[in-house]
Amino acid sequence: MTKLDDIHQEYLIAPDPGRAGLSRRVVGHDESGKPVEIAVVEERPLTIYLNSREIVTAMTIGDYPEYLALGFLSNQGMLSADEDVTAIDYDEELQVVVVRTATETDHEAKLSRKTRTSGCAVGTVFGDMMEGLEGLVLPAAELRTSWLYALSHKINRTPSLYLEAGAIHGTVLCQADRPLVYMEDVGRHNAVDKIAGWMRAEGVSPEDKILYTTGRLTSEMVIKTALMGIPVLASRSGFTAWGVEIAREVGLTLIGRLKGRRFVCLSGEDRLVRDVDPGSVAEEDRRHGRKGG
Amino acid sequence: MTKLDDIHQEYLIAPDPGRAGLSRRVVGHDESGKPVEIAVVEERPLTIYLNSREIVTAMTIGDYPEYLALGFLSNQGMLSADEDVTAIDYDEELQVVVVRTATETDHEAKLSRKTRTSGCAVGTVFGDMMEGLEGLVLPAAELRTSWLYALSHKINRTPSLYLEAGAIHGTVLCQADRPLVYMEDVGRHNAVDKIAGWMRAEGVSPEDKILYTTGRLTSEMVIKTALMGIPVLASRSGFTAWGVEIAREVGLTLIGRLKGRRFVCLSGEDRLVRDVDPGSVAEEDRRHGRKGG
Repeated sequence: MTKLDDIHQEYLIAPDPGRAGLSRRVVGHDESGKPVEIAVVEERPLTIYLNSREIVTAMTIGDYPEYLALGFLSNQGMLSADEDVTAIDYDEELQVVVVRTATETDHEAKLSRKTRTSGCAVGTVFGDMMEGLEGLVLPAAELRTSWLYALSHKINRTPSLYLEAGAIHGTVLCQADRPLVYMEDVGRHNAVDKIAGWMRAEGVSPEDKILYTTGRLTSEMVIKTALMGIPVLASRSGFTAWGVEIAREVGLTLIGRLKGRRFVCLSGEDRLVRDVDPGSVAEEDRRHGRKGG
Repeated sequence: MTKLDDIHQEYLIAPDPGRAGLSRRVVGHDESGKPVEIAVVEERPLTIYLNSREIVTAMTIGDYPEYLALGFLSNQGMLSADEDVTAIDYDEELQVVVVRTATETDHEAKLSRKTRTSGCAVGTVFGDMMEGLEGLVLPAAELRTSWLYALSHKINRTPSLYLEAGAIHGTVLCQADRPLVYMEDVGRHNAVDKIAGWMRAEGVSPEDKILYTTGRLTSEMVIKTALMGIPVLASRSGFTAWGVEIAREVGLTLIGRLKGRRFVCLSGEDRLVRDVDPGSVAEEDRRHGRKGG
């Protein structure tokens, strides 16, 4: 079993549950009427601009707003890989983050055109994401089952805001059996957008990476992972039918229900290298599982 | 202990996990390389129109599209209580549902004006929801702890798509210790919107109702419940700080982490009547808890 300190040293970015502003102590009463004080996660609106255009308001715990904005715009196909990002300005008081490019991108015009016909960018944005999948080929890569078990073991034991306050999702960028960047957020897809933003800012290549998430493997999670160019997506949660369908179309390896020695692979089985006997892996200790929610 | 048949008879609408089109059997492999066939929930886009205006595309399992559209528009403040809804037309092939009113509502004009300035209705829609909270007073009501325990016990044992396929949230409209309408959906807030749509269509009054959800008590869940006029929101999951803040402002009773004999009340404690000794309530059987996701 890996020691906690050793696990923590593997990360480039690990959760910082003690950081001020991410959670708050709130006083209430328990089932016996006894006063209790519990930690609850923060949830704040953050409005993302691309140059002068307001794009979306995300509900977020509030850490890494620059990565969130950069990753969101990249994952929505509004900021292509060769776009020159000149600045990212975050105003904490206004809860606004502005991503600036050298020249106005054509996505601003595109968005403006589409909102006139659709009324809301939700459908539009989603349509744009699907567009980006056409012709996408994810790289060949190896996924050893020993890595899956090691990652799951390490991630479940990493001190996190989830363990501190619950009600939050986590996404971890990994390489082989090493967890690299662990982001958490109340907003379902913000954690993965923050990872996308970090990868873009640091120029990190996706082809040998694995994305681990605590959330469900929905179409949107699958699309985001594929657009990021990451060939493997793993989760302790379950699947949706459309998520599986898209993963199979783009050749993404999709691992779900990863708990203890168990998992199910519903797409991209060819990358899987079974280098460990599942019978030798311990069942999940209840203490290290995740509670509902 | 209540028998399953008796529980099922209490519902006006219960989940129908065997219904065609809500889940699909998918073949993959487990950790040992053994082929497995598992049920996964469907996830389809449904585009909601208000008269001639496209409002939003929601990702949904696809049941009760009329209730979803009606409830969504009501909860967003786009369809006031006195608005005359003349028809709700659902086109299964196009995956479109159109809610028609006698005269064009001013929300279409409002939306049109706001999208010009904001680019995306997400922030706008959210802003509108907050607007509806001003001056809102939730009715006085009694919430017996025996009801909470009975509801939790019954709901956890109700056959559902969650138990069948996982990866889905449930919301249940209750009255005292009786669960009335149990809706499920992949989209986080669709289940509660479907309940709002059912209440509006059936003319059901909210003041003596309890809303139970399997999901987290976020700001959006709290706002929707308050706008529906329901004085109590309970969940087996945790809280966000802003969710608690809004609940306290509008006087909503907020019960979280409701599992077995345990719960935490963080707002609206005055409605709580402790009519049962928590020590006499059984701890949650693991089999009846919810898995992650």
